[in-house]
Amino acid sequence: MRQPGRHFLQIPGPSAVPDRILRAIAMPVVDHRGPGFADLGNRVLSGIQSIFKTEQPVIIYPASGTGAWEAALVNTLSTGDKVLMVETGHFAFLWQQLALKLGLNPQLIRTDWRRGADPALIEQALREDSDYSIKAVCVVHNETSTGCTSQIARVRKAINAAGHPALLMVDTISGLGSSADFRFDEWGVDVAVSGSQKGLMLPPGLSFNAVSEKALAANATASLPTAYWQWRDMIEANKRGYFPYTPATNLLFGLAEAIDMLHEEGLDNVFARHKRHSAATRAAVRAWGLDVQCTVEDEYSPVLTAVRVPDGTDADALRTVILEHCNMSLGNGLSKVQGKVFRIGHLGDFNDVMLLGTLGGIEMGLHLADVPHQGGGSQAALDYLKSTS
Amino acid sequence: MRQPGRHFLQIPGPSAVPDRILRAIAMPVVDHRGPGFADLGNRVLSGIQSIFKTEQPVIIYPASGTGAWEAALVNTLSTGDKVLMVETGHFAFLWQQLALKLGLNPQLIRTDWRRGADPALIEQALREDSDYSIKAVCVVHNETSTGCTSQIARVRKAINAAGHPALLMVDTISGLGSSADFRFDEWGVDVAVSGSQKGLMLPPGLSFNAVSEKALAANATASLPTAYWQWRDMIEANKRGYFPYTPATNLLFGLAEAIDMLHEEGLDNVFARHKRHSAATRAAVRAWGLDVQCTVEDEYSPVLTAVRVPDGTDADALRTVILEHCNMSLGNGLSKVQGKVFRIGHLGDFNDVMLLGTLGGIEMGLHLADVPHQGGGSQAALDYLKSTS
Amino acid sequence: MRQPGRHFLQIPGPSAVPDRILRAIAMPVVDHRGPGFADLGNRVLSGIQSIFKTEQPVIIYPASGTGAWEAALVNTLSTGDKVLMVETGHFAFLWQQLALKLGLNPQLIRTDWRRGADPALIEQALREDSDYSIKAVCVVHNETSTGCTSQIARVRKAINAAGHPALLMVDTISGLGSSADFRFDEWGVDVAVSGSQKGLMLPPGLSFNAVSEKALAANATASLPTAYWQWRDMIEANKRGYFPYTPATNLLFGLAEAIDMLHEEGLDNVFARHKRHSAATRAAVRAWGLDVQCTVEDEYSPVLTAVRVPDGTDADALRTVILEHCNMSLGNGLSKVQGKVFRIGHLGDFNDVMLLGTLGGIEMGLHLADVPHQGGGSQAALDYLKSTS
Amino acid sequence: MRQPGRHFLQIPGPSAVPDRILRAIAMPVVDHRGPGFADLGNRVLSGIQSIFKTEQPVIIYPASGTGAWEAALVNTLSTGDKVLMVETGHFAFLWQQLALKLGLNPQLIRTDWRRGADPALIEQALREDSDYSIKAVCVVHNETSTGCTSQIARVRKAINAAGHPALLMVDTISGLGSSADFRFDEWGVDVAVSGSQKGLMLPPGLSFNAVSEKALAANATASLPTAYWQWRDMIEANKRGYFPYTPATNLLFGLAEAIDMLHEEGLDNVFARHKRHSAATRAAVRAWGLDVQCTVEDEYSPVLTAVRVPDGTDADALRTVILEHCNMSLGNGLSKVQGKVFRIGHLGDFNDVMLLGTLGGIEMGLHLADVPHQGGGSQAALDYLKSTS
Repeated sequence: MRQPGRHFLQIPGPSAVPDRILRAIAMPVVDHRGPGFADLGNRVLSGIQSIFKTEQPVIIYPASGTGAWEAALVNTLSTGDKVLMVETGHFAFLWQQLALKLGLNPQLIRTDWRRGADPALIEQALREDSDYSIKAVCVVHNETSTGCTSQIARVRKAINAAGHPALLMVDTISGLGSSADFRFDEWGVDVAVSGSQKGLMLPPGLSFNAVSEKALAANATASLPTAYWQWRDMIEANKRGYFPYTPATNLLFGLAEAIDMLHEEGLDNVFARHKRHSAATRAAVRAWGLDVQCTVEDEYSPVLTAVRVPDGTDADALRTVILEHCNMSLGNGLSKVQGKVFRIGHLGDFNDVMLLGTLGGIEMGLHLADVPHQGGGSQAALDYLKSTS
Repeated sequence: MRQPGRHFLQIPGPSAVPDRILRAIAMPVVDHRGPGFADLGNRVLSGIQSIFKTEQPVIIYPASGTGAWEAALVNTLSTGDKVLMVETGHFAFLWQQLALKLGLNPQLIRTDWRRGADPALIEQALREDSDYSIKAVCVVHNETSTGCTSQIARVRKAINAAGHPALLMVDTISGLGSSADFRFDEWGVDVAVSGSQKGLMLPPGLSFNAVSEKALAANATASLPTAYWQWRDMIEANKRGYFPYTPATNLLFGLAEAIDMLHEEGLDNVFARHKRHSAATRAAVRAWGLDVQCTVEDEYSPVLTAVRVPDGTDADALRTVILEHCNMSLGNGLSKVQGKVFRIGHLGDFNDVMLLGTLGGIEMGLHLADVPHQGGGSQAALDYLKSTS
Repeated sequence: MRQPGRHFLQIPGPSAVPDRILRAIAMPVVDHRGPGFADLGNRVLSGIQSIFKTEQPVIIYPASGTGAWEAALVNTLSTGDKVLMVETGHFAFLWQQLALKLGLNPQLIRTDWRRGADPALIEQALREDSDYSIKAVCVVHNETSTGCTSQIARVRKAINAAGHPALLMVDTISGLGSSADFRFDEWGVDVAVSGSQKGLMLPPGLSFNAVSEKALAANATASLPTAYWQWRDMIEANKRGYFPYTPATNLLFGLAEAIDMLHEEGLDNVFARHKRHSAATRAAVRAWGLDVQCTVEDEYSPVLTAVRVPDGTDADALRTVILEHCNMSLGNGLSKVQGKVFRIGHLGDFNDVMLLGTLGGIEMGLHLADVPHQGGGSQAALDYLKSTS
Repeated sequence: MRQPGRHFLQIPGPSAVPDRILRAIAMPVVDHRGPGFADLGNRVLSGIQSIFKTEQPVIIYPASGTGAWEAALVNTLSTGDKVLMVETGHFAFLWQQLALKLGLNPQLIRTDWRRGADPALIEQALREDSDYSIKAVCVVHNETSTGCTSQIARVRKAINAAGHPALLMVDTISGLGSSADFRFDEWGVDVAVSGSQKGLMLPPGLSFNAVSEKALAANATASLPTAYWQWRDMIEANKRGYFPYTPATNLLFGLAEAIDMLHEEGLDNVFARHKRHSAATRAAVRAWGLDVQCTVEDEYSPVLTAVRVPDGTDADALRTVILEHCNMSLGNGLSKVQGKVFRIGHLGDFNDVMLLGTLGGIEMGLHLADVPHQGGGSQAALDYLKSTS
């Protein structure tokens, strides 16, 4: 049977794509080598810099985020290179797995998946690496599997404090753009990785590398083989507004629209909106008597909230009930929190009324799935929103 | 500043148009005289009959609902004809004004705008009309200005009880389709008037007349001049799947899709859904300590709920606050309830989560606009939905 | 079997709707009574004046062109009024039939359907009408059934020469906008009738009345009953950017886009483009050895070319072959030229390459359908286009 | 100034995307890990096999074609491996450059860029490679820079005749699907590379690897590092209709639609259509007195025709004139034929009338740009189409 009404896609990405962007990507494809294309190319290339808050080159790949992970590594490293990675959750773990497949040598800092990266542990590891065998420090800005952020500026300070030359690479796939503030230049990031389908409000299919001068220097000596991901060809062609191989033209139409929309609202307004929605969501979770996966106040994600269900309860069964009764998708618990956690996406093009619908639907699902909880969570969120409107 | 997220169009029509229908109306226009057109024509002509629950002809006009009001009258009546009309609210009043402009002679049964048409008063008026000067009884099925429905089957019984030959004309512009059950044949309606932008989930621009055999007989002797609205030419051309003049082709694409969607969900499911949402909305209104405009339990509209604000409060100021802070449109109070009433549309392609968002947004607005009320309305609706899920 | 490639909709309207406009009409519907609507309302209302070249009010109806015909008559005339109409073709004939249905008294000037209205005959008829019983002169600007235009400025001069007070009403449904120059104020037209699906490049569903002050004065005393078409309510509501009843909102989105597109190209460029394409089409027709229906050089339509097939040939069989083999729709011969004429639309958003495809497809069809003709028509058009590029 | 009418995108890819597909990719994005996604996943995964004519796995990458080139090599080869490549044109050259960047050792067979790969030369090279140091033979099926095809079945025979174990890798980026027949299983191809934006009628952003069992065996021992491109993870996840990392969901919507469209027309009809259009295009070129770049009759591309301009003429200046006067994009001459060749794309969703428009526009451009030529080419193509309709 047809499910009536609009589907609520409240996974932590892809976020629901606004109509304006859907219409933009449905424009007729154009000649990406024609004289008119450079207008679009220049527009998205400079526009995406404003979102990363950088004056450095930003590479736009026709690929999803996993490709941009790979690109960051293969452009800067050589076989066997050591990289320091912090396993803040499932996606940090996957990036490490990818590094292994590429023949790199990840050194891992583990966490309990309930917090961001600890700058002190990074500093300690770098101090111990007296021969500078660690070539890069890899941190996930917003860990989509746990709803914890890492404090990138503090990680940079830790690297500097250790006086270590390693590159700082940051996955901000789900952090960038509409959701969390990200400051590539100010924070001293060397390579930032992002994707289209989260804060940028696009369908998946584009991903990004922002690249510092230090990263470009590393690129000159890196020996991992690559062609598709190679920064140099991209940067060269991008100077004239073009791409060295066929770009995903129609997604670029959408990207141009998305960047406009973010600036129309104002990035600071966008960040404040997500932070407020995140707090309102936690108010609901607490009223239900449930726990938030993230345990560090400063590190709550503005993008998503991962919620722990009581022992003996199956979070995936809850999600199924919510999908079937409320026409709403939530994110599942991944890997070692599978079944123990569900994730509420409150990212992208979102507002108070959508959040209240979302939380109301979850509360209905908690009831229908017989998850032990107290009612009133949706109302608690509403009260929070009232008090901060 | 750009308002983030999806706009909640919670006026009692136009209802938010689902993506499937928006995509359908954006298909390239076709030759409405070409051999392929009849497939579309026949599909919408027979499909719309299934929505009116009739085997009689249904005329599809390229016009909005006001046009179908005019069509009902000019096809069946002559200058100076008396029509019995029940002023159940603003739209019933407008239909009467339209009858006056056409040179008809409306006899009015007034109400307090808080209930549907009273069959007993209709019966009485007809019994007093011993020379059958009343040619038609005009009733609004779902009065969009008040949220009260009239019980059409009981009106038909009243006419029959009076043994009066008047035609029964029913405006079901906001009643038909996804919102309220309507049974043209079973209820013995002679002319039904409807439009595209309510339960049918389309943009405005199409309107309808369903026509009984008795109405067709009246048409043969009616003398009000008309060409555009003339049933006969339409019915003749419709037999082959075509129209006598240019139809609104792209809206017909959407109509075909809308009819499919209604049958995919099942009309009975559609009606039950709207009735449940209407009850949940009233639960919220009562929890807020506010009054519903409609005072008769059997006559609550499944389509919309008109809510009275406390004396000394301006409903339009409230609506402005909600529009600006919550990106949501509500319906205004019309004519004599202007400023005293706001109207919540819960019609069309709608679901629990959207309703909870809607009510949460209204509660936030009541708070922000300093309307005297109690909190917890949204939660009351949620509790009702839980208990009936 | 699926027909590959883009369908060529070369009927003389609806014209193929450009992607920009299709995307515009697929935007989410909005509250036509909300505060934001007036921006759209004012934009289309003033924009459409620039297309009619008038500072007088232009009424926008949610209706197709037949409705605007009716509106012109019912707003200005009374039962039994005499109107002078020139039967330049099938659509002029239909307008006359509509006048009859409305109870008017058309006096007809007949033509051979191969030319526009003759100003001299109009002047003569008016001179003979010494008691001014003729209340309006009705002329079709661009007769879509024949491809002949009438010279409206000369008709106005004829009326003035006769010193007759009749209103000048002009159907420019297929003339307005992208196709032919139309100058409401300069030419002294009193009521102009138009529609959305021709030069305005929209799907059908909107139609227009431009209204002179003299027509407004006639409106004050006209007694034909009407409500939907009534100008006064429209003009009053339009002053604030709104409509007295529900407009066809999504088509208005498209109208705003269409007006922008016309001005981006420049109206004079638009008119020159259509005139050139019309001449190129005639070059092809002549090279084929076929006749153009219009016989008066000054009156060739820039919008369409009606082509006569040789005696013994069925134009409709030819059209069927072209539809099936070339995925192209052409207009049929209507009424007394049925089967004898086919019509090539070269209106709306059209360019040289599309015209060459169209003419090439027709030449292929002439061959496949065994219509006696000479080859080389498409080449003749190309040579003409080359020489005028 | 706005250019009127539809843009003719007659480059040899991206091809113009049909409306049906544009609408499909504008559908709301869905949860690619949700229970409903597998329907889409399975549909496109099995559908794309039917287009490659294989029962082997076909990998779908969120990447453009260059990525699928890289994927073919990194999944099967190790650093320093020798690959035999035939430089049939610019794209074959680029694939070789990519192999170099990946640390492979290409052995090159050169051509004059006016023919496909010569099976005899391949056989000879393989016979000379007595120690089987050549691990793969790489051939471009349809060389987009020259309009020459290589005869893949004959290449396979040559490899077999030499008794050599090298893998056969074929780039059919512009060959697959709507344009040229491709038979993965029957022809004994080991890895086929393709993309979305040519015969598949989609925007760029998806690319493909079809993979034989022998290629899978090579994959087990290949040591080039890769993660994003890795077949094994893909094949494993694809079994259940899912992908190991985020797919380009909205392009998959379009792919499903494209596959349906190809089967609605019938692949054999699709191939015949392109072959016929290619012949018609050559008829035009010859009538103009110009040369086709491809000199081998059996190897004319059904997808595009590269046309040589007379010495002393600049093909790019011609293309500029055509873009500005005819609103049509043609492909440029690449690398060593830059300025000497222009390329006409007649691929994807295309029909007779579109071809006639295209050729007419080119003939107009030849005239306007003062390229020495004879008129009548467009007419010659028309005559060819007539004779084969």
